[in-house]
Amino acid sequence: MKVFSSLDDVRAAAERIRSYIHKTPVMTCSSIDDLIGGRIFFKCENFQKMGAFKFRGASNAVFSLTDKECGKGVATHSSGNHAAALSRAAQIRGIKAIIVMPTTAPSVKKAAVERCGAQIVLCEPTQKARQDTLDHIARETGATVVHPYNDERVIAGQGTAALELTSEIPDLDIITAPVSGGGLLSGTAIAAKETHPRISVLGTEPAGADDAHRSLKLGKIVLCEHPQTIADGLRMSLGEKTFPIIQKYVDDILTVSEEGIIQGMKLVWERMKIVIEPSAAVPVAALFEHKAIFSGKRIGVILSGGNVDLDHLPWSK
Amino acid sequence: MKVFSSLDDVRAAAERIRSYIHKTPVMTCSSIDDLIGGRIFFKCENFQKMGAFKFRGASNAVFSLTDKECGKGVATHSSGNHAAALSRAAQIRGIKAIIVMPTTAPSVKKAAVERCGAQIVLCEPTQKARQDTLDHIARETGATVVHPYNDERVIAGQGTAALELTSEIPDLDIITAPVSGGGLLSGTAIAAKETHPRISVLGTEPAGADDAHRSLKLGKIVLCEHPQTIADGLRMSLGEKTFPIIQKYVDDILTVSEEGIIQGMKLVWERMKIVIEPSAAVPVAALFEHKAIFSGKRIGVILSGGNVDLDHLPWSK
Repeated sequence: MKVFSSLDDVRAAAERIRSYIHKTPVMTCSSIDDLIGGRIFFKCENFQKMGAFKFRGASNAVFSLTDKECGKGVATHSSGNHAAALSRAAQIRGIKAIIVMPTTAPSVKKAAVERCGAQIVLCEPTQKARQDTLDHIARETGATVVHPYNDERVIAGQGTAALELTSEIPDLDIITAPVSGGGLLSGTAIAAKETHPRISVLGTEPAGADDAHRSLKLGKIVLCEHPQTIADGLRMSLGEKTFPIIQKYVDDILTVSEEGIIQGMKLVWERMKIVIEPSAAVPVAALFEHKAIFSGKRIGVILSGGNVDLDHLPWSK
Repeated sequence: MKVFSSLDDVRAAAERIRSYIHKTPVMTCSSIDDLIGGRIFFKCENFQKMGAFKFRGASNAVFSLTDKECGKGVATHSSGNHAAALSRAAQIRGIKAIIVMPTTAPSVKKAAVERCGAQIVLCEPTQKARQDTLDHIARETGATVVHPYNDERVIAGQGTAALELTSEIPDLDIITAPVSGGGLLSGTAIAAKETHPRISVLGTEPAGADDAHRSLKLGKIVLCEHPQTIADGLRMSLGEKTFPIIQKYVDDILTVSEEGIIQGMKLVWERMKIVIEPSAAVPVAALFEHKAIFSGKRIGVILSGGNVDLDHLPWSK
């Protein structure tokens, strides 16, 4: 068994999911360029199906299944974008999906899963209850578990966003993406570094959930305990499949403030007229809070998603 | 002097402003298609420079000026998107712009004008004071007055959005745009009907500011008095230059409720992940409130702009 995912896996994923995903646009914004003193290319995964890059990895996993595996469906635990993405991918392939969600999950998230015809199994809102419930379901049904990030198929799928971006804009100096469990960052790093070895790959993370930053410094996975951030997509810990890829390919992980995330999010809405979620604003915040790194550079930014509760915006609290 | 603007004027405008404007994308949204039972092509003028279609007409006017006229600059009265658009077009051509604004204009609108280096002249917030102040400035300075809509150059410029849309998606059954003073709708109608005579052109308007609807029915311009709508871009009356074009080319003007505008706006933000302003949501509301007209059709919708005060969203009041 190979150590970890390769560029070939990302390319195979791109081919496999091509007809199911959106090839998202790359947008630019001269006023943000002027503020940073660089040239920024935003890969708009907020326009991806189900509103986030997660649909890439989920569809790669679902369309990698054998017919026999399909008969038993897929299962995962997630209260966020991965739940909706896996449900939709399963719906497109016409297979069963079971999603373990905590009883505390927002009703809007449950509704998105239900609209895709997936079955929701509620559990207590603890990491242990989620894992135990999922294990039980997998044993009972034989469903294939698709982890939100600690899964080679998911990592390869997430890497297709950077593959598209670096194909369209080949002369980037830096590519940056948010990091939580590391699926997006590790896929991005493989796709970028293996095609453009001189590119600098930077992870970005809230200072209040800086476990990936500390993990990279310490050389071992530090758990994300008691994360303090509005970036609700960035509260997981690195996995044993994503961490070695990040160690190999990622140049640094930058941290940003909560205030910077909110300001970055609002700036993108105002200037670019697009809706991004707090997690997607983390690399935008990094442009401003680590400006010296980005000034004068050509920078690719993965805007990871756009799923926001419009009734509770962070700047209106 | 010819009676009114022609397709040749719109085509000449497109050529004249090509290198200054954004050729905005056309977006689709399968979930909104499903709700309407039609196929909708959204022309995203919220991504236009300065956040609205207004930049097309303003640049066509500014880049139509002779060198002699340039020496004396341009002037207008506006507290909205036209003010910022004209300021920016003048800045790009390197000429002076004077904008008459009511003392009550939001500071964010004044700031946008000032960022473009235009001069603001404040006046009392009455239609008469605005016109008198502008007349005085025009006499004193010799500046060319660029009216927000009652101007052939502006009408032709606004028509370039529909020209792009119908070139990209040639087989539309219907094209729809909001109507206020009628610059966008009349330009849209010329561009659409003269290139695709079988297309149906529909204006859309808030029921609380339905003067254009009534004007078309009565066959004469009805003034927009005491408009009651959150669509702040749609509170003007038709002009003597836009009305005859609308009479000749526009098939009908549909009215929509305030609740429909707010719901349409929020739906576009949620499903399409783009920021549109209330005025741009008026044709979206029409899709839902006049569904029988649109069901089964291929529909072009001009999303007119995306300039919104993010601190005061209509659904959070």
